[in-house]
Amino acid sequence: MTDASTNMRLKLPVICFILEIILIILFGALVEYNYETDAKAWHNKTHSDYDNDFYYRYPSFQDVHVMIFIGFGFLMTFLQRYGFSSVGFNFLIAAFALQWATLMQGFFHGMHHGKIHIGVESMINADFCTGSVLISFGAVLGKTSPVQLLVMAMFEVTLFAVNEFILLTILGVKDAGGSMTIHTFGAYFGLMVTRVLYRPNLDKSSSKNSSVYHSDLFAMIGTIYLWMFWPSFNSAITAHGDDQHRTAMNTYYSLAACTLATYGMSALTAHDGKLDMVHIQNAALAGGVAAGTAGEMMLTPFGSMIVGFLAGVISVLGFKYLSPKLEEKLKIQDTCGVHNLHGMPGVLGAIVGAVTAAVATMDIYGEGMADVFPDVAKGRTASAQGGYQALGLAVTLGIALLGGLIVGFILKLPVFGTPPDTICFEDSIYWEVPGEEEAHEAQMTVMTPEETEKMNV
Amino acid sequence: MTDASTNMRLKLPVICFILEIILIILFGALVEYNYETDAKAWHNKTHSDYDNDFYYRYPSFQDVHVMIFIGFGFLMTFLQRYGFSSVGFNFLIAAFALQWATLMQGFFHGMHHGKIHIGVESMINADFCTGSVLISFGAVLGKTSPVQLLVMAMFEVTLFAVNEFILLTILGVKDAGGSMTIHTFGAYFGLMVTRVLYRPNLDKSSSKNSSVYHSDLFAMIGTIYLWMFWPSFNSAITAHGDDQHRTAMNTYYSLAACTLATYGMSALTAHDGKLDMVHIQNAALAGGVAAGTAGEMMLTPFGSMIVGFLAGVISVLGFKYLSPKLEEKLKIQDTCGVHNLHGMPGVLGAIVGAVTAAVATMDIYGEGMADVFPDVAKGRTASAQGGYQALGLAVTLGIALLGGLIVGFILKLPVFGTPPDTICFEDSIYWEVPGEEEAHEAQMTVMTPEETEKMNV
Amino acid sequence: MTDASTNMRLKLPVICFILEIILIILFGALVEYNYETDAKAWHNKTHSDYDNDFYYRYPSFQDVHVMIFIGFGFLMTFLQRYGFSSVGFNFLIAAFALQWATLMQGFFHGMHHGKIHIGVESMINADFCTGSVLISFGAVLGKTSPVQLLVMAMFEVTLFAVNEFILLTILGVKDAGGSMTIHTFGAYFGLMVTRVLYRPNLDKSSSKNSSVYHSDLFAMIGTIYLWMFWPSFNSAITAHGDDQHRTAMNTYYSLAACTLATYGMSALTAHDGKLDMVHIQNAALAGGVAAGTAGEMMLTPFGSMIVGFLAGVISVLGFKYLSPKLEEKLKIQDTCGVHNLHGMPGVLGAIVGAVTAAVATMDIYGEGMADVFPDVAKGRTASAQGGYQALGLAVTLGIALLGGLIVGFILKLPVFGTPPDTICFEDSIYWEVPGEEEAHEAQMTVMTPEETEKMNV
Repeated sequence: MTDASTNMRLKLPVICFILEIILIILFGALVEYNYETDAKAWHNKTHSDYDNDFYYRYPSFQDVHVMIFIGFGFLMTFLQRYGFSSVGFNFLIAAFALQWATLMQGFFHGMHHGKIHIGVESMINADFCTGSVLISFGAVLGKTSPVQLLVMAMFEVTLFAVNEFILLTILGVKDAGGSMTIHTFGAYFGLMVTRVLYRPNLDKSSSKNSSVYHSDLFAMIGTIYLWMFWPSFNSAITAHGDDQHRTAMNTYYSLAACTLATYGMSALTAHDGKLDMVHIQNAALAGGVAAGTAGEMMLTPFGSMIVGFLAGVISVLGFKYLSPKLEEKLKIQDTCGVHNLHGMPGVLGAIVGAVTAAVATMDIYGEGMADVFPDVAKGRTASAQGGYQALGLAVTLGIALLGGLIVGFILKLPVFGTPPDTICFEDSIYWEVPGEEEAHEAQMTVMTPEETEKMNV
Repeated sequence: MTDASTNMRLKLPVICFILEIILIILFGALVEYNYETDAKAWHNKTHSDYDNDFYYRYPSFQDVHVMIFIGFGFLMTFLQRYGFSSVGFNFLIAAFALQWATLMQGFFHGMHHGKIHIGVESMINADFCTGSVLISFGAVLGKTSPVQLLVMAMFEVTLFAVNEFILLTILGVKDAGGSMTIHTFGAYFGLMVTRVLYRPNLDKSSSKNSSVYHSDLFAMIGTIYLWMFWPSFNSAITAHGDDQHRTAMNTYYSLAACTLATYGMSALTAHDGKLDMVHIQNAALAGGVAAGTAGEMMLTPFGSMIVGFLAGVISVLGFKYLSPKLEEKLKIQDTCGVHNLHGMPGVLGAIVGAVTAAVATMDIYGEGMADVFPDVAKGRTASAQGGYQALGLAVTLGIALLGGLIVGFILKLPVFGTPPDTICFEDSIYWEVPGEEEAHEAQMTVMTPEETEKMNV
Repeated sequence: MTDASTNMRLKLPVICFILEIILIILFGALVEYNYETDAKAWHNKTHSDYDNDFYYRYPSFQDVHVMIFIGFGFLMTFLQRYGFSSVGFNFLIAAFALQWATLMQGFFHGMHHGKIHIGVESMINADFCTGSVLISFGAVLGKTSPVQLLVMAMFEVTLFAVNEFILLTILGVKDAGGSMTIHTFGAYFGLMVTRVLYRPNLDKSSSKNSSVYHSDLFAMIGTIYLWMFWPSFNSAITAHGDDQHRTAMNTYYSLAACTLATYGMSALTAHDGKLDMVHIQNAALAGGVAAGTAGEMMLTPFGSMIVGFLAGVISVLGFKYLSPKLEEKLKIQDTCGVHNLHGMPGVLGAIVGAVTAAVATMDIYGEGMADVFPDVAKGRTASAQGGYQALGLAVTLGIALLGGLIVGFILKLPVFGTPPDTICFEDSIYWEVPGEEEAHEAQMTVMTPEETEKMNV
């Protein structure tokens, strides 16, 4: 387990230090406070301190932040011997990706005299981009070294920013909660990477590619946090006022309907009617993904519930019937089933968004049209908007698949310390793991007489 | 364990799908955005987007949401083999109840031209109603099938809305944090249900009706979240300004005092002075329950601390001396001891509220009287308000007990897949449970030489 | 284990009840609502209810609250058999300390006609002071009784308030996130206490002074919450507007850079390149500590990242090389390594704050100078401000070390039920601990035929 190729003693410090030093230099050269975080600029204008956007975005930011670090991190702790890596590598690549995303998105979102201006909104956007990387991480979970993951994050953040720029800026697509930019992109990118990294002998690690009782409970911490805060995620960067309020509410109802669909489908597809933790942990979240594009539109709670219900049904069916096929026929080893949680529900969300956009009318949106569909308010027809939304999905799929293909081959270079097929899904290859047995020993020594007696029976 | 009666293969999907389809249809027919979530209505008025109530309620909503899904869900994971069900059924019935509560409360809170208007405040109210159902869930924990729980939730939400309507609208009772409407109602409803569902042979499952080391730690996640966010819970729907601020602060001090009382009482009532996790997990929260009615009043931190202290004392005494009696004499099998955490402290909170209302004067409240006691500001005497508060408690107890009685008998119908007495408190009856032993096996295979050596000693 | 000296049956109730009764009496005599929480006072002025500071401080308060109760509490659950005490004593002493801190800080922050006025800002300050006590708790973790901890908290809160008064009020030092007042003070106070309480035979408990797999995962819950909400911590009581916004953002980047440094250093300093959970759980947070003073200044994200990076490097080196030396040579048994997470990074943060203050100019701060450096805006030179900042660090170290010395000797009095050297780091001395073995037994009885078969192989 300590053989040379997977030893991180030099590889990991070198990449961490080089990346961080590059980040620091680029931040020094390019990044400035925006006018809401700069002491001088803020006080140059006349306004109440309470008007600072901090008070209207920061609570959403913190909810998103919890989803990224607790939500994604703990969701992946379901594996019995990969908890340290799930939370720990999630932590590492997220901490890197959010810095790198600040630069990449700042570059594409528009520089100010050669400088990137940052504040709470750029922090949310950086966390969003990070989320996309963590989705891809789910596809390759257990089969990659931390160095591979940092390299993947570097490329994926860059491509994310390109794709986001094309959709939001060039095509004028709306995608506040990122059904396309975050979920579809992250899922198909990750699926392509894991396809390229296909391991024919992965079954040698199969005994560890499963959960134990308490690892499933840790994973539920992740699930529940993602579920609770998804309304904040989808509404975090929508326009202020009714938009943010409506988006949160639509997502809330979409998730609730999705949860009932998930429980029903999980029992229905089990031969003995027993619920499967994999479905509950994942498919119940598909309603949040599927409301990512249309959530800010006048989807209505009614529409949101239908979308959420469908997402839950599709997601459970995917876990049950499609994932085994993808592995067997297409050699896609998708550890967390991101295709079922982010891939298909993301595509569903994009389609729902396109349709909802295509039927938008002034009668429904009134003066609010300018917030939801600025291009429609300026003259683009609603059906054209719907068309651009659909085009956005196609572009996302194209960039994700092509990008994943190229990055997959880069990650195959035999210098990144990837684990052998026989020791995948295993923390002890990269972590000092404490011996579980010591616990029992320790217990014995402190047992009360009654307890000892009970043991002897 | 897979015998026909408890098999959920058809029962659970049928009820999930039917309920969700009914919900979707009713939402389609009856529910509309309110003016703060509707694009057209919001933009018809002149105001800043920052005036949207989203910004003044949503952070409280999210704290309440965490209490409902993480707080209640994990609090109940203390059972050694019922963690999946505790978190998972909590998740399922909460997702259903919040949708159903939107309709029931919308119906009673006043329709607009035959439509229910919703926004963040209705989301908070729906979560509150859900909390009441989860309290009842605590009483029957481990002894009910998910189908029974959904049926119970359907009836309980309905009765909750009726009781709430009588108290808040007809009687003009104040109960912002729900000492009566949520805690007293949920507790006594659940206690009556569990009384009707009395299982004489439950001791056959007694080996599983207890905790293990890590299950107690998971439960503490629930406890601490409930404790931390209770100030947000009690203040989530009070009037804006001083009211919300004061309620949160009163609750904060009530909980702090309650915690010291709980630790003191737990050590005092143990024969060897050792702290009991059951008390810490539950009784330390009683201060939040007891501040649920008077928290928004001018109770003062001093008064809040006295109330919290008393609640902690009562709650520990209840766990220690009353619960065994209730089970033995009255045949009430109260798994989580909701009588001690929600029942008695809820009644205490109602009484404190009545007394505090009865002594309210303009000298203390000034112009703020209209926010705290609108009826008193309009002419009702303070002592009359106190009387109505007391009447509210009586009504709540009556509806809860009678409702619980009827619903208990409904749940006895032999079609809901309830577990046999011998396999209560056991996940594997409704869940695919991973084998714990595999973990140890897996560990062996990946053990380092030193570890193996250590084992052989 | 149930010998008389450590029996808490009388000791713990007596101290809990006496302390709480004193608190209640003092609150009754001294504490009043401030004008934002008082019904009459608030309604005497003309303003919008939305102007209540509740809306601009409470979300930060709740994040801080989570750090205090979940963050600190779970961070310390890494010990295999001390999880109940870690979370539970953290809970107890925090609940006491926040009440006592309200009085002590209220006394020093200025009385109003003999009364202490409280609201959300005093709640945040009370939580901050509590944080300092919990840092000291980390140094003595596993080696102290709950009675000792309450006594320590009582004295430490008092000294904290004195030190804070000298720094903020007398010297005009800026320290919004408490690099000095919270972290440096708490760490060196705790280190001195643990030095005085030196246990020469602690190695007899060494088998329990370590983690197991799942205890490390519980600890990661604490770590991640502290990491995520540190931006809220540092910005919770800064001036509104750009200050709060900037502080949160600086802290965010400081932490991200610190995390990469921590992972790099952890692999680099391990002989086999494996990451050490102790480093990840602790050192990755040092960036938050080190940004505690300068975070509100115009440090820039660039500067914040350099500070965070250095803090991470120093902290890992401290865990690896300094802590063993401190124990061996100076007899400082620092259970959680608070010197590495709070001590050295706190001093670094103080120095960075002094330097950043010394180079402040009107050209950079503009009219914002009055918020960040009120004394400089009123005429003090920037370099004088830097000097006062440095003086603040010296005062803090002096009071912490001297205070810790005295309180350490008080805690040595043989009446507080301290555990013997042989049973440190062990819950069962103060808690009813469920038998782990019952779980396995229980499992056997509910095993499916396939599972039993598997076992027999």
